[in-house]
Amino acid sequence: MTIQSINARNQFKGKIKEIIEGPVVSEVDVDTPFGIVTSVITTRSVKELQLKVGVEVLALVKATEVSIAKL
Amino acid sequence: MTIQSINARNQFKGKIKEIIEGPVVSEVDVDTPFGIVTSVITTRSVKELQLKVGVEVLALVKATEVSIAKL
Amino acid sequence: MTIQSINARNQFKGKIKEIIEGPVVSEVDVDTPFGIVTSVITTRSVKELQLKVGVEVLALVKATEVSIAKL
Amino acid sequence: MTIQSINARNQFKGKIKEIIEGPVVSEVDVDTPFGIVTSVITTRSVKELQLKVGVEVLALVKATEVSIAKL
Amino acid sequence: MTIQSINARNQFKGKIKEIIEGPVVSEVDVDTPFGIVTSVITTRSVKELQLKVGVEVLALVKATEVSIAKL
Amino acid sequence: MTIQSINARNQFKGKIKEIIEGPVVSEVDVDTPFGIVTSVITTRSVKELQLKVGVEVLALVKATEVSIAKL
Repeated sequence: MTIQSINARNQFKGKIKEIIEGPVVSEVDVDTPFGIVTSVITTRSVKELQLKVGVEVLALVKATEVSIAKL
Repeated sequence: MTIQSINARNQFKGKIKEIIEGPVVSEVDVDTPFGIVTSVITTRSVKELQLKVGVEVLALVKATEVSIAKL
Repeated sequence: MTIQSINARNQFKGKIKEIIEGPVVSEVDVDTPFGIVTSVITTRSVKELQLKVGVEVLALVKATEVSIAKL
Repeated sequence: MTIQSINARNQFKGKIKEIIEGPVVSEVDVDTPFGIVTSVITTRSVKELQLKVGVEVLALVKATEVSIAKL
Repeated sequence: MTIQSINARNQFKGKIKEIIEGPVVSEVDVDTPFGIVTSVITTRSVKELQLKVGVEVLALVKATEVSIAKL
Repeated sequence: MTIQSINARNQFKGKIKEIIEGPVVSEVDVDTPFGIVTSVITTRSVKELQLKVGVEVLALVKATEVSIAKL
């Protein structure tokens, strides 16, 4: 099913730099212009989406999940 | 209380560009070198942290909150 | 930008039944064949995605956000 | 401690179909009328709640965790 | 529907101290032995659960939602 | 980078009591004066922050991640 657009306001486009695979969840590191964006998703999703180093992806974050710290 | 470091792997430094204040939650838009990062936090936090346009902040996201989409 | 697929394991297809719009966030209720799925997203996203009653959408949930209760 | 009701607006009742156990977190797949709902919770919770294939549970999701995609 | 137990590892029992009601979401402040625990839930849930100042509740947090900062 | 303050309204100070390390994520249990607070973070963060039993930390939770149950 193709998605036209999604509400996640924060979208970071990049290429997968590294995948650390665990039995249940995996870490997917995406190389974006913002720097490395790290995601933890199910290992099943990694396999179903056929994610591999070099694949172009979009890292998505809902605005309600973003915290703000003062420097 | 000063924090030395935090586990949130995804940290985006920038200046606040806009705040849309609601009665309970507010939208805080942070201008980073690579684009806008949008956050929704409580309006109480906006006031307690004295967030205003131009203030330098860090937008933080836990890795478990990041989704991955294939293009 | 068209998305081919996303890692969110839980995807519920339906039509928007109701939108309660607030100044910062809005509630979007999606009528699926098996019941209503409720989402809270930014009001900006509601406008940018041009969400209205009757529009067909996909409600998405990351597996790490799902809690389990025993009956 | 018995809970009468909870604010999670999205509640999916079903039976556990599969559990993939990891050292820290486990995937729990629940067979509901909406289809399979997948959850990742701590392995400690799986043990403490004595979750097993066939057990009836409620998969719960906060409205703020639900994203909306346009088809 | 009565719930026997839930996977949320972090459970804070207390009495509601204050509710700030907004059009879509409300802030619910719970007075617990840990101090005030603040929650943002839909205003619909506040009404359906008949939450009011003084009512005894459980504030629940999934372990995957907890960040760790070093002092 | 030192952080002065953060928007997470719920902050629980304590000492690490136990760490269960997995290949991708680890469980960090924090002993606070009022009980254990459990967190799941990436194993990389555990190493980078040099988290060990006895280290003083702050467990942080965004208000939008807190659910409310009625007893």
